[in-house]
Amino acid sequence: MKNYQPVRRFVSPALLALIVIFTLPFRVSAQTPEKDADAAFIRKIYDRALTDGRCYPWLEHLCLRIGHRLSGSTAAEKAVQWTRATLDTLGLDSVWLQPCMVPHWVRGDAEQVRVSGSKKYGTINLSALALGGSVGTPAAGLSAEVVEIKTWEELDKLNERGIRGKIVFFNRPMDPTKIRTFEAYGGAVDQRAHGPSRAAKYGAVGVLVRSMSLRLDDFPHTGSLRYDSTYTLIPAAAISTQAAEKLSQLLKEEGKATVSMKMNCRMLPDVQSYNVIGEIRGSERPNDVIVVGGHLDSWDAGHGAHDDGAGCTQSMDVLRLLRQTGYRPRHTVRCVLFMNEENGLRGGRKYAEEAQRKGEFHLAAIETDAGGFTPRGFTFDAEESVFAKFFEKVAAYESLLEPYGLKLSKGGSGADIGPLKGMKGLLSGYSPDSQRYFDLHHTADDTFDKVNKRELELGAASMAALVYLLDKYGL
Amino acid sequence: MKNYQPVRRFVSPALLALIVIFTLPFRVSAQTPEKDADAAFIRKIYDRALTDGRCYPWLEHLCLRIGHRLSGSTAAEKAVQWTRATLDTLGLDSVWLQPCMVPHWVRGDAEQVRVSGSKKYGTINLSALALGGSVGTPAAGLSAEVVEIKTWEELDKLNERGIRGKIVFFNRPMDPTKIRTFEAYGGAVDQRAHGPSRAAKYGAVGVLVRSMSLRLDDFPHTGSLRYDSTYTLIPAAAISTQAAEKLSQLLKEEGKATVSMKMNCRMLPDVQSYNVIGEIRGSERPNDVIVVGGHLDSWDAGHGAHDDGAGCTQSMDVLRLLRQTGYRPRHTVRCVLFMNEENGLRGGRKYAEEAQRKGEFHLAAIETDAGGFTPRGFTFDAEESVFAKFFEKVAAYESLLEPYGLKLSKGGSGADIGPLKGMKGLLSGYSPDSQRYFDLHHTADDTFDKVNKRELELGAASMAALVYLLDKYGL
Repeated sequence: MKNYQPVRRFVSPALLALIVIFTLPFRVSAQTPEKDADAAFIRKIYDRALTDGRCYPWLEHLCLRIGHRLSGSTAAEKAVQWTRATLDTLGLDSVWLQPCMVPHWVRGDAEQVRVSGSKKYGTINLSALALGGSVGTPAAGLSAEVVEIKTWEELDKLNERGIRGKIVFFNRPMDPTKIRTFEAYGGAVDQRAHGPSRAAKYGAVGVLVRSMSLRLDDFPHTGSLRYDSTYTLIPAAAISTQAAEKLSQLLKEEGKATVSMKMNCRMLPDVQSYNVIGEIRGSERPNDVIVVGGHLDSWDAGHGAHDDGAGCTQSMDVLRLLRQTGYRPRHTVRCVLFMNEENGLRGGRKYAEEAQRKGEFHLAAIETDAGGFTPRGFTFDAEESVFAKFFEKVAAYESLLEPYGLKLSKGGSGADIGPLKGMKGLLSGYSPDSQRYFDLHHTADDTFDKVNKRELELGAASMAALVYLLDKYGL
Repeated sequence: MKNYQPVRRFVSPALLALIVIFTLPFRVSAQTPEKDADAAFIRKIYDRALTDGRCYPWLEHLCLRIGHRLSGSTAAEKAVQWTRATLDTLGLDSVWLQPCMVPHWVRGDAEQVRVSGSKKYGTINLSALALGGSVGTPAAGLSAEVVEIKTWEELDKLNERGIRGKIVFFNRPMDPTKIRTFEAYGGAVDQRAHGPSRAAKYGAVGVLVRSMSLRLDDFPHTGSLRYDSTYTLIPAAAISTQAAEKLSQLLKEEGKATVSMKMNCRMLPDVQSYNVIGEIRGSERPNDVIVVGGHLDSWDAGHGAHDDGAGCTQSMDVLRLLRQTGYRPRHTVRCVLFMNEENGLRGGRKYAEEAQRKGEFHLAAIETDAGGFTPRGFTFDAEESVFAKFFEKVAAYESLLEPYGLKLSKGGSGADIGPLKGMKGLLSGYSPDSQRYFDLHHTADDTFDKVNKRELELGAASMAALVYLLDKYGL
């Protein structure tokens, strides 16, 4: 677990001994002020989440009544209106929509990707989804020989001579030995992001990418690509891990393979959309804000249940739970459902811009965008000076959160809150168990039934508990 | 989390400071002897488990080719032969069957439990499974008025007058606010175990028990009952949580309800069965044994996938992983697949008896019987003197296991290894994430597809890592 550095490792045992001895009275008064009261309040939050949580039925509505919500789609607009209306019922101090323009990419007809003319297998259909943002193929499709590539070095070595006129098939799997699956994702997703333009640089006509998944199955995983406008924009699709294995096997057996691709996805003009925001106004420092949020948009497959319907409905429930338990926050506590995380980050950027414009200090922002699985902790990202202050409190926080299986450590936060980083606040990422996330991520299989009610509720409670501590004790 | 006491809480900060200062050289030499070598070896175990694990295909075979395996059944016998044959292929030092007689209870025809004559609803079928060990009803079934009970006090208060001739419906739900679901189970399962005889004491003719589950669905959860032979043995069945809610609602609306039950389950004479055992003989202390095991029998519903096919195939893989990595254990390392955990514990008792007879010291025994979910740690149970010794090592172990998300704490171990407790060894229970376990436990829904490959493999690696540390450093 990279970046996994519990605070007690930051000091050597001998130094710790001295710190403990010489600062004990100070520590007690400054850092663990009301341990019993805090423990009781946190217990109350969990009790309520587990007996009277709303995130699960809200997620059911979002998934089964609205469905997937790609930026610019009618469903995304419905999701905006419905979450706003739902926040309106919670007795918050204000609920509003924050306008932002979003890209409007559409998939068009179902992708057709197939191997043709195999001696042994004849024609093989490969389960595929165009990568988000991809251009389409010519209307009649395109057909070319396939080159399998596992590393950038291989690609560079093949060069124009080996690549021109071909379809490049990026087939480097995620590393199953990484314990945190996000690391394995991080080690493979460069193929999806940069593969299309790096292949185009050498004259490729199309790209296939092995799906970002640790599971062997037939679900293709979509996701965004990043074109480099220096090169021709060529069509690119993800194929399922099984399809990737099949294609690779065929290349081994027959030496070469011809693939045809037909996709009519395309980019339309930007569309007006919104971040959805609700807040409880701070009683002491209303201009200092604590954000908890997820992203309301999703890919156009499945329900966007774990990614990130879960995070949105949990964030909404955090405000409800704090309201219902009668807590009066010192700082403003805000739930933000960001628009367009998946293919543009326009919502996240707009939110930070507006915060800057209004001079709001963002004390802390917590993003939940790693699925609705069992809570395991939070990671924190901040400038060193902010860290130094915050980590004085971590031991006390951790002992309060440990009964709920939570650990606090350094690490990443979330894409949508990234633009807030310059503000010298604390950024945090909610970290649920990561083992199953990439089985479902960006696929037609990311559906409501894959979310466990208790696991979702525990996540909402965990975030509410952290918000409570951050609000009560500040940075 | 009751019993959740990480070792660093056992001493106060001030005391810790003194301990750290005055024992630092000793600690380093005695407790963290080869940290880098240990870390590298543990990493190797995980790498192999995650790239070349066998527990998942083994579990697939056990679930899909053999199926559920109630003690005394033909499938249980098949499972014995197949796991023995599989262990035989692993290059262990010996593999054998340890005979034990087991109870042979059979469910007979599908249970019929229904409400009849409701004014509003007419007849309602209630999804039911007879409790394991229950007697059947008369051939024609039985029919009686239902009394709903939530506490023993209510039952005692109703007494003979309120209970005689009736069917008692125990409807106290598991407590959803418990973070560890095993605690919630522990707080409700007395109804299933003791309800039948405590109701019979007051003249009840049958018992229905709300299923032990935190989920609202239509799967009944079977499980064993414990008759007290002082009272008449009356038939008892679990009904699904939805059926329980429906019946309770009906009783509220109509004041009373008549239920008919028809079950022809029965106990047949004991049958010869076996624990399946494989071992790698210790190079230094062959008579000191470390056991890792699960139970091979299951209830006769679903596949017994999480309960406890997962634990069996993980335990088998622990030995294979140690063998494949070339580790030569100092102590004998044994995989034991216990027979009859669910309804008799005959295998566990027989194993302890034989160990006693042969004068084998069981240094440690680890049971895995909590599902094949993501690892969260191990709990330990031992006499205080054993604990005191072991906990000198826990901090060192924990720092090696922390990168894999494991925590070590005091707590329970497992039913099958319980009979070993008198031997002054260390008993341990593998603790995976518990949130989803009771959704599936003892139901037709506990099937292979509910087990995640990575989560299962991570569990096998976690057990192998603990076995390695216990073997290398002893108690």
